[in-house]
Amino acid sequence: MPHPDTQPQSSNMGIATYLFGRLKQLGVKHVFGQPGDFNMGIIDVIEDEEGIEWIGCCNEMNAGYAADGYARVNKMGVLVTTFGVGELSAMNAIAGSFSEMIPVVHIVGTPSTEFQSQGAMLHHTLGNGDYKTYYKMYENITVAQTVLTHHNAKDEIDRVLKECYIRSRPVYISIPADICVKETFADLTQPLDFTIPENVHEVEYAAINKVVHHIHRSANVIVLIDACASRHNVVKEILDFIEKTGFPFFTSPMGKGIISEDHPLFGGIYIGSVSEPHVKNEVEKADLIISVGAIRSDFNTGGFTYHVSPAKTIELSNNYIKVFFATYGGVSMKHALPKITACLESMPGPQISPPYQHKILEDDVKDERITQNWFWHEVSSKILRKNDIVVGEMGTSIFGLMDIKFPSGVAFIGQILYGSIGYSVGACLGASLAATNFKEKRRVCLFVGDGSFQVTAQEMSTIIRHDLKPVIFFINNNGFTIERMLHGMDRKYNDISQWKFDKTLEYFGGSDKVCRTIKLSTKSEFESFASSQLPEIPSQILFVEVMMDKYDAPRALVGTACNTAEKHMKEKVLPKLHEELHRKTVAGEKY
Amino acid sequence: MPHPDTQPQSSNMGIATYLFGRLKQLGVKHVFGQPGDFNMGIIDVIEDEEGIEWIGCCNEMNAGYAADGYARVNKMGVLVTTFGVGELSAMNAIAGSFSEMIPVVHIVGTPSTEFQSQGAMLHHTLGNGDYKTYYKMYENITVAQTVLTHHNAKDEIDRVLKECYIRSRPVYISIPADICVKETFADLTQPLDFTIPENVHEVEYAAINKVVHHIHRSANVIVLIDACASRHNVVKEILDFIEKTGFPFFTSPMGKGIISEDHPLFGGIYIGSVSEPHVKNEVEKADLIISVGAIRSDFNTGGFTYHVSPAKTIELSNNYIKVFFATYGGVSMKHALPKITACLESMPGPQISPPYQHKILEDDVKDERITQNWFWHEVSSKILRKNDIVVGEMGTSIFGLMDIKFPSGVAFIGQILYGSIGYSVGACLGASLAATNFKEKRRVCLFVGDGSFQVTAQEMSTIIRHDLKPVIFFINNNGFTIERMLHGMDRKYNDISQWKFDKTLEYFGGSDKVCRTIKLSTKSEFESFASSQLPEIPSQILFVEVMMDKYDAPRALVGTACNTAEKHMKEKVLPKLHEELHRKTVAGEKY
Repeated sequence: MPHPDTQPQSSNMGIATYLFGRLKQLGVKHVFGQPGDFNMGIIDVIEDEEGIEWIGCCNEMNAGYAADGYARVNKMGVLVTTFGVGELSAMNAIAGSFSEMIPVVHIVGTPSTEFQSQGAMLHHTLGNGDYKTYYKMYENITVAQTVLTHHNAKDEIDRVLKECYIRSRPVYISIPADICVKETFADLTQPLDFTIPENVHEVEYAAINKVVHHIHRSANVIVLIDACASRHNVVKEILDFIEKTGFPFFTSPMGKGIISEDHPLFGGIYIGSVSEPHVKNEVEKADLIISVGAIRSDFNTGGFTYHVSPAKTIELSNNYIKVFFATYGGVSMKHALPKITACLESMPGPQISPPYQHKILEDDVKDERITQNWFWHEVSSKILRKNDIVVGEMGTSIFGLMDIKFPSGVAFIGQILYGSIGYSVGACLGASLAATNFKEKRRVCLFVGDGSFQVTAQEMSTIIRHDLKPVIFFINNNGFTIERMLHGMDRKYNDISQWKFDKTLEYFGGSDKVCRTIKLSTKSEFESFASSQLPEIPSQILFVEVMMDKYDAPRALVGTACNTAEKHMKEKVLPKLHEELHRKTVAGEKY
Repeated sequence: MPHPDTQPQSSNMGIATYLFGRLKQLGVKHVFGQPGDFNMGIIDVIEDEEGIEWIGCCNEMNAGYAADGYARVNKMGVLVTTFGVGELSAMNAIAGSFSEMIPVVHIVGTPSTEFQSQGAMLHHTLGNGDYKTYYKMYENITVAQTVLTHHNAKDEIDRVLKECYIRSRPVYISIPADICVKETFADLTQPLDFTIPENVHEVEYAAINKVVHHIHRSANVIVLIDACASRHNVVKEILDFIEKTGFPFFTSPMGKGIISEDHPLFGGIYIGSVSEPHVKNEVEKADLIISVGAIRSDFNTGGFTYHVSPAKTIELSNNYIKVFFATYGGVSMKHALPKITACLESMPGPQISPPYQHKILEDDVKDERITQNWFWHEVSSKILRKNDIVVGEMGTSIFGLMDIKFPSGVAFIGQILYGSIGYSVGACLGASLAATNFKEKRRVCLFVGDGSFQVTAQEMSTIIRHDLKPVIFFINNNGFTIERMLHGMDRKYNDISQWKFDKTLEYFGGSDKVCRTIKLSTKSEFESFASSQLPEIPSQILFVEVMMDKYDAPRALVGTACNTAEKHMKEKVLPKLHEELHRKTVAGEKY
């Protein structure tokens, strides 16, 4: 019998207390959501618990975006909503986390077991006595679901959190109001085990053999890193691989920032036909491409324009390795990649020439107006600093950011696959709170256009309330420019209503002491701001309104739009629109 | 062969053109939504079509609320969203319309048939090639769904619109981008037929016989009118019934305003144990209750406190008649009620005494502070006018409004069953546009608290943009008072961040010319405003900020909260809280 001191400490504790104990072990220090009468027992526990803080948002969709942004910086995010009205409001945010593979734990406070078993016609129900519908809807966009009972709570919490972490996707935990306060015998001293099972030896062996064989017989190998490399936690393994082999690496837009872009082996951002020409050339001339964690969505591939043959591509993923046309099922890169690295010999130095240099983009207009391409180059060269957290909105912002060079350690947050506009404002809240979990201070820079901002604008007040200090670059260009590029360039529906954007911080409760608003209309104004007014670690929220033309878009957006727009539009509408776009931009027509 | 002139006019037309042609026939003149690249072909048609207007909202949840508010005034509302991100953002709004039985047509623009059949990894997808998930999720909260093709479009549009209208619940129409512009041979001259099938004669006859029999042998009959009376379109039938019989009628909170409250037979609002005592007495002493279109949800029944025995209740509904314990299935009141009326003899006059007189509610505090009970009495007696459209937010507003007397012809909009906070701001936009469809001008009055307002605040800008002129009573009481009544009275999570609410109209783009903001902190200020500053038909948007105490709630909310709070809370928490509430209110403690 073991000595009593070596026994794990365990005791009776409330079910919600156990859940948040587990979440704290996973690094969660902030929980997002909105109170409702069915979840307030859960929020009581958060408010009373040391080491975890309740962040009440203005609505649940915004809170879901915040939890997602938090998870992208802090590995896991948590959202608490109430039954029905709350959870359904967050549906789009959780679907986004599912699509983009972000581990968010969605906890829903539901009516008591007694009411549910009676099928009572409570508020927030569909009025039909059915208490399973919302859960059923969530099965489509979460990888594990549970309804906690007094007896299953401990095991189910552990199971679902493991699924969330390992599969890097959202999970759904439903807690009836009477259950949340019930006590259970539980043990928090044993941390959850997140190791994934070893690969089946023979399959892995065969795959690795093939990979090593093809690497050995190739003269020009490059590595292409995409989002699943970070989602499935193989960043260190890739770094070991490229540093031992000296193979140059490129990233997709979604893979941007996973490995520091000042690394000597960094070759650039590959976006298919939309890539900068020298990057396109380097990638497409390689005779072997090691593709790690690929997500080949439209906006991540320049509109499905990868000119990279499967016949020279090795795919590493979390559940298979594919060598050209042969798939080795069930082989995870997490275990296989270090073994591949071990089989290869150290190379003397970088195998790339020339190393990546960001090209100065050609300016569209030679006057004082701030143009998109000019702006993003300035952002790359003068705004961003080491270790910044950059949040980019789906729109001109994310396309502007996707192919500029980032300083070392910059993290990039955006929804290139799911693309829900408004996401970035909530994500900025989440990322800003997650940034406070680091020892060294990290700055958060948000880039968002006026149309997207209006979707979720009220969450600025939560940023102000919690004394966060992001730098917000607000692109004022009168509407949905990304939509104009795709369809309806001059349609009224792509215009938006004009708010007093320069009063944003003031309206949402910011005092002059904590807030600063700046409006930049010319290149000189912008340069002066960039050189002298942007602190490394801001002591105030900065709201920087940048005026741009509504017909102007960064080159990656124009290129991608041409490649992905609906077929009939490509044939009939786009050529005309782009001609017009060029004319308007050059002529300097204003809205 | 008929003469060519008598043939219905029919021709080839675009599929979206046909759809909006049908919707115009149903009185739809405004369509709510947000553009996205998969729905812009649909919005093109709306922008180009005479007689129908596109109302671009700030986000899709708000647009869904607006479509719901519009439908409550105009019988049908329409929402257009884009695939994935748009439709899922509106999920909670459509679930609310389903729960509350509001006919909203949700049109979703989806990727082209070609992309869908390839399972392409487009933006807005879940990244798994599955194009059916969102549709599947919507099956849970709509009564009919369709994916339009070139061949089925005409028939499917007709089928789904009929379901929407007849069942008075939302439907879902998915239109791939390539299909929306395809032409179809269609005929708009034959209007859709919404008549519902006749009841099966023998069952209806048996039911009517029983109903008439029991009416004849009862001395004290009352009629209790609830929401489904308007949802299923039997208002005229009820009016004929009560006017012929002289039976007094009462309404539930959700039935409020269906029949004008200045009708001589109007007895009051019945809310179970929360009713005003004389109303409770009149209803519960009746020996026969004709209950029409009942929805017995918690907040509609004072927290399940109807003291009305089924042994003396006849239920009329859209698909059954229930006489005490016997159900006559499949018998709709629409056809049965006129026949019941026809079987009864005309009565000489009202059978009620005393007629309904709204009691002056006792004021909680005898000083200048504006208290909830005082305020709602003022609203009833001095603010509301004939034919106003009143939108009440779930919170102190809806509970304050639910038992005050309305002037004649006032319509009441609120989500008493589904109860999603923030609904009222979007609904106010929708109701305000619907009000422009009437020949005579109707004023829209919104009552909303600060916490709920923050959920959907940005839609104020759409109200401003379209030059609408609602009167907004904004209750500033520092947070979620309804939640405080239920749980966590002094919890931080029930506080909200303080915005510069008095700058609301200015921030969201309103000029001084079209906007007026007023702040009322005392009873005298309010009385002066009510007597001289509130025009019958406002020429500006009025934003009236009314300061109230955060612990103060209207009597119907305090009563309902006591009756519906979770069982464990009722036993352990509520008595303490209500004691404290009383103490704080009387002591005048401020936030």
